[in-house]
Amino acid sequence: MTFTAAVSGASGYAGGEVLRLLMQHPQVEIGAVAAHSSAGQRLGSLQPHLHGLADRIITDSSLEQLAGHDIVVLALPHGASAEIAAQLPESTIVIDAAADHRLESAEAWEQFYGSAHAGTWPYGLPEMIVAPDGTRQRTRLAKASRIAIPGCYPTGSQLALAPLAAAGQIELQDIVIVAASGTSGAGRSLKPHLLAAEVMGGMSPYGVGGVHRHTPEIEQGLGWASGRSDVAVSFTPTLAPMPRGILTTATARIAEGAGAQSVRESLEEAYRDEPFIHLLPEGQWPTTQAVLGSNHVQIQAAVDARVGRVIVSCALDNLVKGTAGGAVQSMNIALGLPEQTGLTQQGVAP
Amino acid sequence: MTFTAAVSGASGYAGGEVLRLLMQHPQVEIGAVAAHSSAGQRLGSLQPHLHGLADRIITDSSLEQLAGHDIVVLALPHGASAEIAAQLPESTIVIDAAADHRLESAEAWEQFYGSAHAGTWPYGLPEMIVAPDGTRQRTRLAKASRIAIPGCYPTGSQLALAPLAAAGQIELQDIVIVAASGTSGAGRSLKPHLLAAEVMGGMSPYGVGGVHRHTPEIEQGLGWASGRSDVAVSFTPTLAPMPRGILTTATARIAEGAGAQSVRESLEEAYRDEPFIHLLPEGQWPTTQAVLGSNHVQIQAAVDARVGRVIVSCALDNLVKGTAGGAVQSMNIALGLPEQTGLTQQGVAP
Amino acid sequence: MTFTAAVSGASGYAGGEVLRLLMQHPQVEIGAVAAHSSAGQRLGSLQPHLHGLADRIITDSSLEQLAGHDIVVLALPHGASAEIAAQLPESTIVIDAAADHRLESAEAWEQFYGSAHAGTWPYGLPEMIVAPDGTRQRTRLAKASRIAIPGCYPTGSQLALAPLAAAGQIELQDIVIVAASGTSGAGRSLKPHLLAAEVMGGMSPYGVGGVHRHTPEIEQGLGWASGRSDVAVSFTPTLAPMPRGILTTATARIAEGAGAQSVRESLEEAYRDEPFIHLLPEGQWPTTQAVLGSNHVQIQAAVDARVGRVIVSCALDNLVKGTAGGAVQSMNIALGLPEQTGLTQQGVAP
Amino acid sequence: MTFTAAVSGASGYAGGEVLRLLMQHPQVEIGAVAAHSSAGQRLGSLQPHLHGLADRIITDSSLEQLAGHDIVVLALPHGASAEIAAQLPESTIVIDAAADHRLESAEAWEQFYGSAHAGTWPYGLPEMIVAPDGTRQRTRLAKASRIAIPGCYPTGSQLALAPLAAAGQIELQDIVIVAASGTSGAGRSLKPHLLAAEVMGGMSPYGVGGVHRHTPEIEQGLGWASGRSDVAVSFTPTLAPMPRGILTTATARIAEGAGAQSVRESLEEAYRDEPFIHLLPEGQWPTTQAVLGSNHVQIQAAVDARVGRVIVSCALDNLVKGTAGGAVQSMNIALGLPEQTGLTQQGVAP
Repeated sequence: MTFTAAVSGASGYAGGEVLRLLMQHPQVEIGAVAAHSSAGQRLGSLQPHLHGLADRIITDSSLEQLAGHDIVVLALPHGASAEIAAQLPESTIVIDAAADHRLESAEAWEQFYGSAHAGTWPYGLPEMIVAPDGTRQRTRLAKASRIAIPGCYPTGSQLALAPLAAAGQIELQDIVIVAASGTSGAGRSLKPHLLAAEVMGGMSPYGVGGVHRHTPEIEQGLGWASGRSDVAVSFTPTLAPMPRGILTTATARIAEGAGAQSVRESLEEAYRDEPFIHLLPEGQWPTTQAVLGSNHVQIQAAVDARVGRVIVSCALDNLVKGTAGGAVQSMNIALGLPEQTGLTQQGVAP
Repeated sequence: MTFTAAVSGASGYAGGEVLRLLMQHPQVEIGAVAAHSSAGQRLGSLQPHLHGLADRIITDSSLEQLAGHDIVVLALPHGASAEIAAQLPESTIVIDAAADHRLESAEAWEQFYGSAHAGTWPYGLPEMIVAPDGTRQRTRLAKASRIAIPGCYPTGSQLALAPLAAAGQIELQDIVIVAASGTSGAGRSLKPHLLAAEVMGGMSPYGVGGVHRHTPEIEQGLGWASGRSDVAVSFTPTLAPMPRGILTTATARIAEGAGAQSVRESLEEAYRDEPFIHLLPEGQWPTTQAVLGSNHVQIQAAVDARVGRVIVSCALDNLVKGTAGGAVQSMNIALGLPEQTGLTQQGVAP
Repeated sequence: MTFTAAVSGASGYAGGEVLRLLMQHPQVEIGAVAAHSSAGQRLGSLQPHLHGLADRIITDSSLEQLAGHDIVVLALPHGASAEIAAQLPESTIVIDAAADHRLESAEAWEQFYGSAHAGTWPYGLPEMIVAPDGTRQRTRLAKASRIAIPGCYPTGSQLALAPLAAAGQIELQDIVIVAASGTSGAGRSLKPHLLAAEVMGGMSPYGVGGVHRHTPEIEQGLGWASGRSDVAVSFTPTLAPMPRGILTTATARIAEGAGAQSVRESLEEAYRDEPFIHLLPEGQWPTTQAVLGSNHVQIQAAVDARVGRVIVSCALDNLVKGTAGGAVQSMNIALGLPEQTGLTQQGVAP
Repeated sequence: MTFTAAVSGASGYAGGEVLRLLMQHPQVEIGAVAAHSSAGQRLGSLQPHLHGLADRIITDSSLEQLAGHDIVVLALPHGASAEIAAQLPESTIVIDAAADHRLESAEAWEQFYGSAHAGTWPYGLPEMIVAPDGTRQRTRLAKASRIAIPGCYPTGSQLALAPLAAAGQIELQDIVIVAASGTSGAGRSLKPHLLAAEVMGGMSPYGVGGVHRHTPEIEQGLGWASGRSDVAVSFTPTLAPMPRGILTTATARIAEGAGAQSVRESLEEAYRDEPFIHLLPEGQWPTTQAVLGSNHVQIQAAVDARVGRVIVSCALDNLVKGTAGGAVQSMNIALGLPEQTGLTQQGVAP
């Protein structure tokens, strides 16, 4: 059986990656390829790597263009998806790569985004552990017709720490996360600090001091995993001189009674059956190069007994598992397809 | 129908890429994963991006390990393949990613490699035009049981110029090629000039002055295309600060009577039906990022009438179309499978 | 004795580099730091690496601000300098980093730039050999009060080939130059193809087919060196994934009677006494990393007797010897200071 | 007055950078340029960026070669300096860039380095605040004849947090530091994970879980600043795809009564008079590109009141302020020269 998919925001990095993945999906046919300011252009001039769609003309992102598909993926700036989704029938699966419907708390939304909350959709991180019974988020995605894809940083942070939060291995008020992201995470924005000459050879932090909008999303996820509402995360993102990839270094004070062995067991148990999340053998550490272009996530942990902290390292591709791969994986679940359909665990390295 | 494949040299970059591509090939099952000095190690410790094979133990590269497969891919330094191939039956398809069997001329081999010539195998560049009738090299690969994969630089240089050589559009004694390659082209060699700190932020030439071993291979190919033996190529390779990719700038004096239109027509005609070689629309130029991880090749040409030269630009991934993708494509032909099986035209960008 | 200098275009890459070099010049005091759209901002917010000037406020680029300095350096887009220079007295040394006054031929200017020719100023490449007597361009810079700094590509191309053109070692109608530049060469322009995510990991050509505006400037220089007007250069620039640096690969058909030894002698003789231009020992090749941040230029040559061509490789920093260092060096000459004052031959590597 | 300096370890990255800085020092003349395995080679073949010393022949690193200089800088692996220093007279200033004499605690040394402690030398971080009276470490360097240069990571970590530790602004048992370093920090070691093809496009952690040898050095420094012995630091280093630079993200639980204003005041007061340590204006964050090649350090801080933590970001060049610049700065103090002699605050950017 074949499903049709439209992609809005096709001229950006996230939209391009959704297209790349859907092109290799055996049961999806790509319909409308839409965008705003670049409507009317050949897709090949904006996404020259998508050879198979090079001669497609980008359409405008109107209801007329998007309607009539089984799936509509929205890769647009936040604020645009609610209105579009409201116009599409419930029978259409709408997958939003933006932030609009990720947060349950209207208060957190308003504090971090400064606008009215658009509501909450099922959260497209299938591996997420949900308290109190430890079921996975994927059960909420089956037959979902509206799905909010997690932010790229929250994907790594939650995958790193949720098993430990769920298993009571860490103290939830003393969590520090520092993450390094490739610059595609900032989108195709024409900003001086994203120019190649200024990025290559340099690293810099941004959104420091708890102001990055992914912070409440990380806390929400660790709240789901632990069943508690008092999670406090210090999150610092940094910009790294690479096109893709997020390396997350997540540390937390280890809970009374927990240790290296129980930490490893919690992670092993959480991810033993997950096709895309891989706890590495002891002694081997994640590298973002190993996951490039794939939906593969590498995780490793260590306990620093001297200072009483656990450190979890997590590598993923921000455009795949952090965005477009998460979207396709969630789409597969919603469609009742095997979760790995069209996705790969193999990175492109070196 | 499923074929079994062994890969020797699995711990290197070329061998790793062959494995990556074969893993996504629907009709190949990976058998022995062999190497020399790293035998006994987990593949996952050396090729952490190949998640699906992470727990495989690398075997030694002995006849015992390689025998009994339908296909054996050799990704070894030159000089090693002849002996191995001699021990494998004709029913086994042996694909050599090294240089040993690429050159027809024993004299050229001895001049550039300084050892005895091991003989010549069918050349694994299916799109290559062969004079006098313009048949393609792929006809020689059907049912071949020994295949020599082209060098990465010759792949780009030949694809850029062979159609013009075949169509009499260029003068064959005034060809200048300058190419920039990512450092994976040098293999996983522990040499100071390949250290990241010395490569990033820098470009340098090497093998200057007609001494690079790929030079006679390029001349041989343009000889095949033109049916002439007097091809003379000035070839200068440079090392670029990127992991993968070759950008070839190939220029030649334009032939009497040729011009921008006839050049474009020659390229169009040559590649109209080729699934992996794409002449870009006028005004758009190749970029190696667009072909990363794919078997896709981008080509564009311009004629500089002021100075009477044609300039052809060609971008490919040295590890895919330049090595492992060329191997899989040739293997498909030899096996009678559709040529695109298991290969993609979509690059991983940005 | 101390001279005062104003810099216009201080918010761009070239202007920033002029400031960096002037800050370490023992006889220059920096006066006005001017720009257009960023007037009123702290320099530290735009050029955070120039700590010593961080609290300077950028002024507008008006005559009022620029007047009254001994030296005015213009790092502006082409088209702006003639009017400003006309308003400044002859006693002020005006150094133009833009193209306006580089070309002697009004016809070439109009063909390549599409506007009226602004006239010709002394050309700020002191090492340039000028026929028929082989004097150097520096003699024309002594006491000059208007100086046009060469383009970054022409600097490398001319330094590579002028000695051979002057010595009759090459045929002037069969010159092919391919150069790779770091992206700072394109300036601080907000264009998608200059975004870090699109540059890193990729190489691409541009301005192919003799249309790049540096082409007539290269031909002009080789004409000066050879005393002939029939120079024809095929020039192809490429964009490399690095912030700075130009690697030039310049090849020409070797002249009757010339050879490896005479080529080396010509280069040795030309640069024996030049403080910034260094012919490397035989066997060692230039690398742009070695010249980063310095006015140092590395050159090496090889003769490919098989095909009858000489290949000269040249590495320089586009922002130093290719722009700001050339400006300071020329300024030193105009001021009667030792040519090396405030400049370094040591690169920042690795 | 001119001093003579010998450099041992001249073929490595740290030794090369010491040479680069000493070459621009107006009162130092470079004497012996020594190394082990590369003795007898031209320096220009190993450090092609040091044009002015290109024809120097590297000597062996024997006492004969090193004796007779006013200053001897040792840029050798740890374990080598004690013996050499013992043979040099007290009148020679010996500066050790290795770890041997950094730690006061023999126990910590033995735990982290697994060998016998060689003793403690004055610590070459002049800006370091020392309790109880807040004097700076530079007072201990005046007239010192043996100096241990800090590790590159500890330089950033201590500069970020020492002022807050000294001022009682942070809790010393809840410090988390994550740092990203360019690969020159690992030295010119021929290891696969340092190959360009594997570094570019990737980030990875190493030495995770409190096992990195710089951990006790960071704790020692914060102990000096605070006058307390109970400092506990969780330190995670990561390898970034850039040649140089360290970006340190240091966070600590904020002390009772402290806040954004008192944090800023503590940093301002600590660094107001320091020529090389610069607290950025509010809203501007450090970037390693801005300090490339310079002894300049950028610092900025934020308080995340939601979670009760302070985050300090610090950018430096690991080879300059983190090694060779720190050595020259300390040497200046020991020689009674102005501290900034021969050093620059201006980075090479973009």
